[in-house]
Order: sequence, then C-alpha cells, then structure tokens
Amino acid sequence: MNDVYVVDARKSPYAKLVPIPLNRIVVNDAFWRPRLIGLVEKTLPMQYDFLEKTGRIDNFRIAAGLKSGEYTGLWFNDSDVYKWVEASSYALIHKWSDDLYKAVENVVDVISRAQERDGYLNTYIQLNKLERWANLAWSHELYCAGHLFQAAVAARRALGNETLFKVALKFADLLSTVFGFEENKLKTADGHPEVEMALVELFRESGDRKYLELARFFIDVRGRGLVTQTNKNPFIRIDSVYLVDHEPIRIMNDFAGSHAVRALYLFAGGADLYLETGDEELLNALKRLWRKMLLKMYITGGLGSRYEGEAFGEDYELPNERAYSETCAAVAGVMWAWRMFLATGDAEYMNVLETILYNAALAGISIDGTKYFYVNSLADPHAKHERRPWYECACCPPNIARLLAFMPSIAYAISKNESKIWINLFIGSIAEVNLHGNRIKIEIKTNYPWEGHVEIRVYPEKSDEFSIMIRIPSWGLGTKIRVEENVIEPKPGEYAEIRRKWSWGKAIEVKIPLKPRFIKSHHWIESNYGKVAIARGPLIYCIEQVDNKEFDVRNLAVKPDEAKLEEEYRKDMLNGIVVIKGHGYELPSDSEKLYRDFDETLEKPVKKLTFTAIPYYAWNNRGATKMLVWIKTIQ
Amino acid sequence: MNDVYVVDARKSPYAKLVPIPLNRIVVNDAFWRPRLIGLVEKTLPMQYDFLEKTGRIDNFRIAAGLKSGEYTGLWFNDSDVYKWVEASSYALIHKWSDDLYKAVENVVDVISRAQERDGYLNTYIQLNKLERWANLAWSHELYCAGHLFQAAVAARRALGNETLFKVALKFADLLSTVFGFEENKLKTADGHPEVEMALVELFRESGDRKYLELARFFIDVRGRGLVTQTNKNPFIRIDSVYLVDHEPIRIMNDFAGSHAVRALYLFAGGADLYLETGDEELLNALKRLWRKMLLKMYITGGLGSRYEGEAFGEDYELPNERAYSETCAAVAGVMWAWRMFLATGDAEYMNVLETILYNAALAGISIDGTKYFYVNSLADPHAKHERRPWYECACCPPNIARLLAFMPSIAYAISKNESKIWINLFIGSIAEVNLHGNRIKIEIKTNYPWEGHVEIRVYPEKSDEFSIMIRIPSWGLGTKIRVEENVIEPKPGEYAEIRRKWSWGKAIEVKIPLKPRFIKSHHWIESNYGKVAIARGPLIYCIEQVDNKEFDVRNLAVKPDEAKLEEEYRKDMLNGIVVIKGHGYELPSDSEKLYRDFDETLEKPVKKLTFTAIPYYAWNNRGATKMLVWIKTIQ
Repeated sequence: MNDVYVVDARKSPYAKLVPIPLNRIVVNDAFWRPRLIGLVEKTLPMQYDFLEKTGRIDNFRIAAGLKSGEYTGLWFNDSDVYKWVEASSYALIHKWSDDLYKAVENVVDVISRAQERDGYLNTYIQLNKLERWANLAWSHELYCAGHLFQAAVAARRALGNETLFKVALKFADLLSTVFGFEENKLKTADGHPEVEMALVELFRESGDRKYLELARFFIDVRGRGLVTQTNKNPFIRIDSVYLVDHEPIRIMNDFAGSHAVRALYLFAGGADLYLETGDEELLNALKRLWRKMLLKMYITGGLGSRYEGEAFGEDYELPNERAYSETCAAVAGVMWAWRMFLATGDAEYMNVLETILYNAALAGISIDGTKYFYVNSLADPHAKHERRPWYECACCPPNIARLLAFMPSIAYAISKNESKIWINLFIGSIAEVNLHGNRIKIEIKTNYPWEGHVEIRVYPEKSDEFSIMIRIPSWGLGTKIRVEENVIEPKPGEYAEIRRKWSWGKAIEVKIPLKPRFIKSHHWIESNYGKVAIARGPLIYCIEQVDNKEFDVRNLAVKPDEAKLEEEYRKDMLNGIVVIKGHGYELPSDSEKLYRDFDETLEKPVKKLTFTAIPYYAWNNRGATKMLVWIKTIQ
Repeated sequence: MNDVYVVDARKSPYAKLVPIPLNRIVVNDAFWRPRLIGLVEKTLPMQYDFLEKTGRIDNFRIAAGLKSGEYTGLWFNDSDVYKWVEASSYALIHKWSDDLYKAVENVVDVISRAQERDGYLNTYIQLNKLERWANLAWSHELYCAGHLFQAAVAARRALGNETLFKVALKFADLLSTVFGFEENKLKTADGHPEVEMALVELFRESGDRKYLELARFFIDVRGRGLVTQTNKNPFIRIDSVYLVDHEPIRIMNDFAGSHAVRALYLFAGGADLYLETGDEELLNALKRLWRKMLLKMYITGGLGSRYEGEAFGEDYELPNERAYSETCAAVAGVMWAWRMFLATGDAEYMNVLETILYNAALAGISIDGTKYFYVNSLADPHAKHERRPWYECACCPPNIARLLAFMPSIAYAISKNESKIWINLFIGSIAEVNLHGNRIKIEIKTNYPWEGHVEIRVYPEKSDEFSIMIRIPSWGLGTKIRVEENVIEPKPGEYAEIRRKWSWGKAIEVKIPLKPRFIKSHHWIESNYGKVAIARGPLIYCIEQVDNKEFDVRNLAVKPDEAKLEEEYRKDMLNGIVVIKGHGYELPSDSEKLYRDFDETLEKPVKKLTFTAIPYYAWNNRGATKMLVWIKTIQ
C-alpha cells in the first residue's frame, strides 16, 4: 500500500509539519464515517449522473471526436468534472466501489482524448474555436487547468492512474512555454486563481521545478492590473479588486470586494509556495492577510459576505439574511488554513479551520449527502433557501465532496524535524503514523462533537520518547488531560504537549467541557447588535421554525441570564444531534409598518416561550423553513 | 407665455389631479431656490463639459458624419445626453442662460443629424454596426429611445424646439412598425423599462394614439420571460426577476431581486398608462406593488437596498452600511409616487414622495450642485464614500438634475373636476393657478423645512368658492391651521380641506410643530435592531464624524429617554441647517475580536458625551467622513 498524501509536504523544506497519509487513517466514528461512506455510496455517483445529464462529460467527448455536437453549459464546466475526479480518487480510499472506480477511469480516458496535440485542454475554447488566452480575466482557462492538475495528482496518488497525470504534465509544460516574465511570454494570470496551488502540487508529485517557478510567476504577476486588462467583453465590467489583481499579495492591505474563492485560493497557493521556498516576506504577508480575514468571518467560519461579486466585505460587514458565505469559500478557507498550519504549527489556524469545517463547510451538504447549498445564509426569515441536488454553476457540490474526502488528512500531522505527533481534530479513528521510522498506531475514541470525552491510545512499534500534541479548542476552558495518574489543565486555544516515553497501548484521556454558551459579537457588526448566538463545543447553533411551532422565530427574543439553556442528545433527530432548549420571549409584530416614533414602540414581549436550537450545519434538512443564528436580546 | 406641463395630464381622462405649469411657479425660498439657480449656473454646464470630455456627444457627431472615430464609453451613454437635454430644458425656466440654451440647441442639432433615414437612433448600435434589437435584454436601445422622447417633449414644451420632437416622432413611428402583438412584429421589450412613460408623454404631446398603444404593448408584453430570452451574451447571466420580466405587473406579487430603477420606471409607466386608459386592474396592481415597496424602503425613502443587481431586496431587507439606494431609484420613486398621486389624490403617495425628495434624492447631489452620489449609504463606518463630479456610468447626475428642474411642478396640483387647489409640498413660491378659468395666484411664505410656519396667501382674479387642500405630513401631530379667526387641528397624514369663498389676499396660516424625534424600526429589519434614528420634520438626520471629534461615531450609543435632543439653526453651516445635539455614551471598542462569550462582553459605556446630528441630505459635503443614521441604544 503506497502512502497517499494530499498536501505532500514531506520534502517541502519550509514545512514545520507534514500531514499523515490519507490511507493510513480509518475514520470510524458516528459523526464522520457515515459522511465518508456516503460520498462513495451516494454523493459521487449522483454527481456523476449530473455531470453526464448536463453535458459536462459530453463536452470532452465532443472535443475528443467521440461524439458530435456543440459545447453546452457555462464556460468553466470542465472544472466540475476535474473536481469530481479528485473527490472520487480520495473517496475511494474510505470505501472501495468498482462502479465509481470504473466511472473515474472512463472519465479520465475521455478527458485524455480531448487534449490537443500540443497539450492544450479546455473544451469551451476548443469547441467554440476561440482564441486561447485571449480573455484570461474571465475565461477560466487556467482555473480549469488547475483543477485538472489537482485531479491528476489525486488520481495518481490514490488510484495509480498515470493517464491523467501525463495529460496534466503535457498541459503544464505548454503553460510554462506560454506564461512567464521572460520575453515573448504572456505576462498575465487567470482571473480565477487556482492553478497556483495545483502547480506546486504538480511540482511535488513530479519533482519538476519549472512547475514551482510557474506557480511563483502566477502569484507574482498578479496585483498589477495585468489580469484585469485582458477583459475584452464590453458588456462586462470587471474591476481589479474583484479579481484580486489590485495589489500583489506581498503588499496587499485589504481585499474587501475581492471574490472570496479567488482570494482564498490565491492565498492558499501563496502558502504552498512558501512551504517550498521559505519566502519570509510572502509568509508575513499571508499572516497579515489572515488577520484581516478574521475581521470578515462569520461566527460559522463563513467567508465572503457579499452577494455582489461573491466577495469579501469590509471589516465587520457580515449581514446574516444576505450572508453569501459560499460553500466553496469555506472549502478554500480550510485549504488555506491547513497550509498556514503546516507552515507554522500555530494552533490558531487549526482553531479557525475547525470552526469552518463543522459549520460553514458542513452546512454546504445535506446530512444524507445528496443536496448542496451554494450560499450559506445565517438567517432565513422568509424560508427561501433550500439545498439543491445540483446547480447550473456547480462549483460547490464537487468541492465539498473533495473536502470531505481528504478531510481526515487534516486531523493528524507529524513534525518534520521533531518527535511530535499532532492531533488537530478529534475524529474517532485509527491512524498509522510513521514518526521518523517508528510506526505508531494512534487510536482516538470519542463521540465528539456531541461529547467532550476523548480517549487517545498510542501503540508504538517500538517504545520511544516523543510528544503527543493535542489541540485544546479556544472555547475549551476547564479541559483536563489525564495520562495515568497525571492530570494537567492545558491552556485553551493552544496545543498541549504530552511528552514521555510511550509504550504499547498507553492511554491519554481528554475531557473538554461542552456546555451551551451564548456568544456576543463586536458592536461594529451592524447585523448582530443586541443579539446573541448559541454555541456548544465547535458547533454554532441555530433556531429553525420547524422545531418551534408555537411562535414565529423572527419574533424570538431572549434574556441570556434567564434563558437556562439545557441540552439533550436526540438519537432520532437528524442522524443524532444534541439539541439545546432555552427560555425566551415572543416580541409583538402586529404591524407591517417599518418606522414609528420611538415612544410608541417600546417592544413589550407578548409572552414567555421555550425554544429549541439545533446545530447550524443540520439546518434545512427538513425542507425550507425559517431560520436564524443570531437571537435578539431584551433586558 | 405657453404653459409648460411636465406630466401633462390635462386631457388624461382618469387623472383626478393635474399639475400646474412649471413656468407658472416661481420658487423663491432659501432652501430650494439656490438649488434651481445652481442647476443653470453650475450643475448643467459642468455636466455638459463631462458629456463632451467623455465622448458622449462625439458619439452622435461620429454617427452624424461630422467627425470620424469610434464609439467610446458604455453602450447606453446616449441616454445621459438626452437626460441632460431634458434637465436643461426645464431648468432654463427657473433662470435663463444664453450659453446653456445654445448648448442645448447645438446638442439637439447633433442628435438630429445622427438619426438614420428610417428613424433609428442609437449611436452604440450604429457605430459598431450591430444588429438592431438583437439583444434587447441588455442593449438599452429602447431605454435610450425613451430618454430621447422625454428630452424631445421637454425641449418642445419649454423651449419650443421642434427639431428634437420630429426626431422623436420619427423614431417612435419606426418603433410602432417593429414592436407589437401583431404578426411579423417583435414581441419583446427592452431589458430596461423607461420608454413606457416616455411614449405616454409623446402621445400626450402629439395626440397620436399609436404611441399610447405601443406603451401599453411594452407593459403587457413584459413578465413572460420574452425580454430575458433576448440575452445572447454567454458570459452574462441575466435572470427575469432582475429585468422585472418574471411576472406581468398586473399579477406581480413581489419584486425582490428586481433592478430598482427598472422596476420603478415600469411602475411609473403603468401609472401613466392608467391615467389615459382607466384600467382598474392595472391601478389595483400598482397599489399592491406600492404597498410592497413600502416594506423595502429606507427611512430616507431610499429604494433598492441591494448592491447585487442594484435591486430591491426582500421585505425588511435594509442594510445600512451596504445600502445601495441609488440616486436614480429615488428619482424614479418620486416619478412613480407623483403619478399615483395624480391618479388617486391619495395623500400617502405625497407623504412618501416628500420623504424621498428631502432625503434619499437630495443626498444624491452635493449642496453646491457639483458632485453626485450614485449609491446613498445609510452608514459609512470606514469613510469610504464620497460624491464624485461624474461617473463612468453617469445615469445619476443628469437624473437628479432633471428631478430638481421639474420638482416645483410637484408642489401644486388642481382637481380635474372639482374646485380644489392642492398644496403638496411647502415650498416658498408664487404660483399662478388656472382653476377652471379663474386665474388664482398663490403665495407661500415659509422657511420650511427648518421652520414649521407656513403662510399661504390666495389672490383670485375673481372671488369664488373653492378649496385649498393642504397636505399635513404624517409626522405633523399638533398642526394648527388658522384662517382669520378660525383655527382647526387637521389630521396628520391627510389633506386638510379649507373651503370657502376666497377673496384677494386672504391668508392661511399653517403651524406644524417641528420637534426632533427618535424613530425606531420594525424589529424584523436586521440592521436596525436596538437602534434609533433622529428626524425633524421631513428630514432624517445623521451623525457625521466631522462634527463629533471627541469620539468615534461607531461607538456612539444613546438612551433615548435621557438624550435631551436640542436644536439650533446654524446659518454658517452647510448653507444653513438646523443641527440637533443630544447626550449619549461611548461604547468600548478596545479589541478587534469579532466574537466573545456573552459573560465577558457586557458593553459598559466608557463615558458620557454630547453628539451633533445634521440632516442626512447634507452629509459628505465636507470630505469623506464616517457617518451613521441608526444609533445604538443602551438601557
């Protein structure tokens, strides 16, 4: 069994940490395992059907001459096929399926036949006989190429598929003759970053340094307006901020107005570049941009608050009803955070990653793995949102699938130059870690995120001294760690280091208090003033109308000090969740009138009530229904 | 002197009211007169310079063969030239200027030479040799035509210009051979409504009924997706809701997601159609849509809350920092409200119109008449907004100019079939009213909106019995009206009818209490919960950082019951305004952290302070500065 690395930082000179192979982790808990199995049993086969039904694979068949017809769909639809190949390759590690494997092989074969002789591949451009690279601001040619490269790397690592890898190398070789700072080369990049991360991984997989150089070129050429200038469509007005082309990331101060997924893929690509080059200027810029991002992040970890341009807003600009918080942005946020963590070993990145993963990202897919949110609202006063099985612009479905498929890789890491094993996420699993030659099995037993009790057992091939690093969530005040008779109280928001000589079967017991808590936001967030949210452990909660039949959730108010939050595990509900109940009040809403003199309008609560809250990720699994995260307070 | 009517409803069979001629009103108060004079002295000459500098008039010259070159600018730039002609024609009534008049004559001449032999006129299509009507969803061909017609009607009425009128008729004649429900005609409309209102006015001016029929066609063909289907650009995804093409207005329930100016121009066109046809189904639909609009309106009267699509949001969706509230939408809102008022005589339309006019619309232009807002934010926490002298998409500057130019027409009306003179707005002026043959001068003396005292004097050519209808604003509780020794206390929000035999010089004294007041909004408006706004008379107030140097306005909080609002007329400030001062508190903002556990974060006010508020329309006249309308409350 070859090791399957997702971000293969083993040889990256500036990685502090290296993930462990995806195929050395068996997830077996009640929370994640059904989702991973569901990928293979339902999610990815259903997505394949949509790829076929919507002509996305036919576009390749037509380009390959296997079929006649015209290009159908949006101009970047190739990327959905590539993302599906990537997700399927990794998902097959968690559960084998001959059918899914054959589908991947078949799709890869069709893709490879669509490639032009010189390596070019983009069915929209090919079938419409358009000029290559003529409108890079909008054409997504390199965006699609990036997803092709990621798919090729995944299929080679997970399935041993060399066909797609050859296609990728040939295309990447072409790119390196076309783009670059050298004379006679195009000095621009794609309007949609993505190829940067992909090229670094292609370098890692192939060892060919020119791909790394090309990634560096695409990162450094950006931010000078050159990409923006390639827009040739007089009816489309694209600005450089939207394309993250307004400033090079090395000197960028803000990205309000930048398309969130574009920005986050670019920053993740920058982090990948740092891992290989040790460019401190770049890392410092990325750290600064990260701190900026935290001022634009929803409590769910959702990123990109604006519908307009699917973009980041200004600092503190976080509307709830009109939250955009695209599922793809959550995926991209995880990808960036993970790379920053590998570069620094800083717990903060993993703290934020966990928030995104359990809330903004997980809400993007229905519990049964068959429907997707593109937009992740934080309030739905009109019950207008509903997950759909597919989208015309279908970037999100295969993106959340690939995140779930490689997510177990994030849970563990090892230090590159130290004897440390890092436990980043509490996922019930058995992992086999190769710590500088010593094979160590780690077993995590937990019912997290419902319970805070985590049992970690260590089975080293040979007894040795090393550290187990355990991330204590930033909300985990009062956490206790026990190893035999030793008990420590680690600091929340950091890694607790348990260093000792470990022998076969030694156990660590972690107890993290999970009490429902009210959260308040900075009063500069316009939409949250006078409101509180409920959280428990890593999960943000929400109030859904379907659980609260006695009142309209839009009229709910609480006095936090009197709410008496209580929790209850409900095995029957939504595949098993902890619900939270509390006491509140119903505000009057007898008039539709928007504005009244203050004296007239003292909002006297009508009556007392009891409300029920469920985890945010689980909302909208019982049809369209009103929902809110932030609850009005009264005094 | 010919009478110059702006909405010439004299012969409209279903008009309850008719405006009085624009050239029979002399505005002479301190608030409005400088703005009208400024149009001629500064605003319109400066706009002319921009029309020249940006190639907008050259596009016509090139199409006319007077100059060589290519089309420059956005594809609907012709409309800016037309709107400028319309605004200038009406503005010259308030103050004559040979230079401005000559500029209009010159521009009209150039426009007329650019027209093709068969009547077609659109320089973007002509110069780029594009197929006519091929992409009506996006091409704005009929939108530009509509502005041409309105300009032609204005230039004929105000300046006696027949040249542009002939151009308009010739083009409209062409349109009536191209569009219609008859066989062999195109069954679609323009993606941007506007031509509907214009065609009705062209019918009024020419008497040719086919223009009215064409207006009816464009209104009735809309809402079936036919317009949307004409989009041919694969890179532009337009939906029918955005184009207000999702439902015919007769059965339309909602327009969340519809481009605000498109929707409002369409509805205004519908109201014009009703005035001529008496179609009750249409009027009832418009009344229903009006009520819907009130659930989507800012406290300033601002319309269209969404940046995305410059569109109306859902009911109660009214963000402040990201308010769009386009200046053009305020203009369109006034146009629609005015027509609904003429159709019904219902005070509500005029109440809302006054709010829009004094706040959302007036904020669109700087006090000195030289700079414009496109977007009218209700909060600017980062001081990022600033009026500009021009825009690439320059729809707003000439639009606010034409509103100001014809605004005096709105102030008065007469009943079509009754002896009633309506005073709709309190504008210091002398008007000459022809009430069914009796020439009556009305003089209004007032320092409104700063003072609530209004003196109305009536000078009938012959003494007669008729009514003076005086609109009492909805906030005007405690208003008193005195005629000689008779005093009445009229009901706010309605017209008070003063019927008697009027003789030369008889006076009416109206006293409207103008006290600063706090306003609260419905708790379903996400952004305003726990906040209050300040108003005085028709004016909404705001807090600008420049007046409040001791604290950051983002940290301001008030206890309304203890705020002790005080007013002061400041002759020196912003051309003379009433400022409001009050007591408040400064909230802490020591951390940038967005989310904290509730217990940690009780917001204890740091210290007491005094704040200063100015009228919202007057903000941003002293450079970019932080601003807010809605103030946080604490208890």
